[in-house]
Amino acid sequence: MKIQGIPYRTIWPDGGLVRVIDQARLPFELRVVELRSLRDAATAISRMTVRGAPLIGATAAYGVALALREDPGDGALGTAIETLLSTRPTAFNLAWSLERMRKRLAPLAPSRRAAAAWEEAAAICEEDVAHCRAIGAHGAALISRIADRAAGRAVNVLTHCNAGWLACVDWGTALAPIYHAHDAGLAVHVWVDETRPRNQGASLTAYELGAHGVPHTVIADNLGGHLMQRGQVDLVLVGSDRVTAGGDVCNKVGTYLKALAARDNRVPFYAALPFSTIDWSLSDGERIPIEERSPSELTHVSGALEDGRVVSVRVVPEASRALNLAFDVTPARLVSGIVTERGVCAASAEGLRALYPGCGAAA
Amino acid sequence: MKIQGIPYRTIWPDGGLVRVIDQARLPFELRVVELRSLRDAATAISRMTVRGAPLIGATAAYGVALALREDPGDGALGTAIETLLSTRPTAFNLAWSLERMRKRLAPLAPSRRAAAAWEEAAAICEEDVAHCRAIGAHGAALISRIADRAAGRAVNVLTHCNAGWLACVDWGTALAPIYHAHDAGLAVHVWVDETRPRNQGASLTAYELGAHGVPHTVIADNLGGHLMQRGQVDLVLVGSDRVTAGGDVCNKVGTYLKALAARDNRVPFYAALPFSTIDWSLSDGERIPIEERSPSELTHVSGALEDGRVVSVRVVPEASRALNLAFDVTPARLVSGIVTERGVCAASAEGLRALYPGCGAAA
Repeated sequence: MKIQGIPYRTIWPDGGLVRVIDQARLPFELRVVELRSLRDAATAISRMTVRGAPLIGATAAYGVALALREDPGDGALGTAIETLLSTRPTAFNLAWSLERMRKRLAPLAPSRRAAAAWEEAAAICEEDVAHCRAIGAHGAALISRIADRAAGRAVNVLTHCNAGWLACVDWGTALAPIYHAHDAGLAVHVWVDETRPRNQGASLTAYELGAHGVPHTVIADNLGGHLMQRGQVDLVLVGSDRVTAGGDVCNKVGTYLKALAARDNRVPFYAALPFSTIDWSLSDGERIPIEERSPSELTHVSGALEDGRVVSVRVVPEASRALNLAFDVTPARLVSGIVTERGVCAASAEGLRALYPGCGAAA
Repeated sequence: MKIQGIPYRTIWPDGGLVRVIDQARLPFELRVVELRSLRDAATAISRMTVRGAPLIGATAAYGVALALREDPGDGALGTAIETLLSTRPTAFNLAWSLERMRKRLAPLAPSRRAAAAWEEAAAICEEDVAHCRAIGAHGAALISRIADRAAGRAVNVLTHCNAGWLACVDWGTALAPIYHAHDAGLAVHVWVDETRPRNQGASLTAYELGAHGVPHTVIADNLGGHLMQRGQVDLVLVGSDRVTAGGDVCNKVGTYLKALAARDNRVPFYAALPFSTIDWSLSDGERIPIEERSPSELTHVSGALEDGRVVSVRVVPEASRALNLAFDVTPARLVSGIVTERGVCAASAEGLRALYPGCGAAA
């Protein structure tokens, strides 16, 4: 996607190192940082310099490549995978990507591993771009069908967190259909959930929709239910960090509340995600590990002063405890459908198996 | 209630003027400000120096008294009531309080109005305190019944926004039962919704619970649903800005989402409010006017820098639109019951009429 006319991806290799957009600085500053080592890659994931399930997977793959440049032995490969796997517990793409790297690299002679790792990481990225583009095409059909009934007014899509191109290598998952529809000339307006506590909606989704010229309005996470009651939401479209073989959707905390409101107001609720997000080993969403992050992400808010300086301010009394769980699980019964690179299916074991024959034995 | 051992109310008369706690400065600074005129009172309400439905009503009553001190004529009385009525549209206590002042004052000779206005405003405050204390006793019984089943562990109550003593003259509505239960020795722990965009949970509810020594944890508004899925919420208790004769509950935006999650997880959901919050003229919650406030309340966040200075930071890109609707309506079907100064009733026309015989013709 483009920022001020210049095409970007969120991650790209550059002569033996890896460059990523520092997402902790957006929307106030566009800064590209270098990852030069395994440690750099692991820190970038855990501190959320990069975030979003597909991008976490891509970064981990390059993290393995960076590690093997220094030491291509079995021990180093195992350590790299374990180190990266421990950075964040919920996004399944991380485990998927590292397992793919292990399978590709472990059988090779150490001397051949480094080159193969860079190649495989690049392949993971290219595949993610292709998958997200396909998700966009399949999801745009949902928007197009609503537009047919909307008689010229804009289709209102509500999204939570950031599942745009900044969450992936390019295009995005939940936002890819919106970009496709917008580029095809459909009138789309996006309600952007602020997405406390890290404000990925206000800072990242608003930023990338704005950069692409898609009309949007930032709202408090609290407002979506009321807008649905008023008939001002046509479709809820979110990404996911892990989908079970039974169709339960783990995503940024607060997603479940929007799914409940969608159900109560008969608004369709879809999750968009690539194959790499589906955890075929789990049938029950309650067993997905939910990451607990630092309370400081809730007690302190980063933003820009009038002079442009970015500072962090405390919004909770110092004596008060705070709890910061980063994800929740929306049961399949509340999900209208799942959009993947292969099409749209029901949020169920049968639906997912129909798109991916041979997978889903656990269900 | 006490702050550092000193008993406070949120509003009190003091020799011809009125003093209020400046709630826009909490939790970082406890400052008492003077209201000397009608304009001061109206500005204090519209800028949310004072907020909370019962306290808005009390402040408006004193606003009338301040206005009549300068001019006790019919014109001034009418202007004062209209000016105050236009400060905020949703909280019914405002209209209730002003109508009560009009009924009391209009029949009097102008020379007798000023003294009667101060008297009536004081009576409204005393009545609010008595009502909130009674709400506390009735609501504490709900907590006590849960405690009986909880086998020694703390009862977990989730609340949204601030419906504590800072929202009233003293005691509070939703928090009064918690104070009663805590003071009676029951183990209560409160999940405090941050309550974006104005953060009344993080700044006011956390502050007053902390000052009273009630264990509490601040959470993102997004987290409550997940906590209910995990069985970590025993009761949802909120205040209200307007309840219809049919039992629909208008409250701070986001309340509806918590009611949906409570229903989905079989967690009881109660609203606590005095008589003055009930709008007997409306049977349908969809007809309650929903206040739209400045987008800047969402795009900018106030908080304290490390050196203690309180500043405002921007959290949304400048190019992005934002929408800030302050309330939503929870349909009666999602409300387990309503707690008033007269007891606990079903959220229905029949339930409310049983507590208030003779009211509720509109239902």
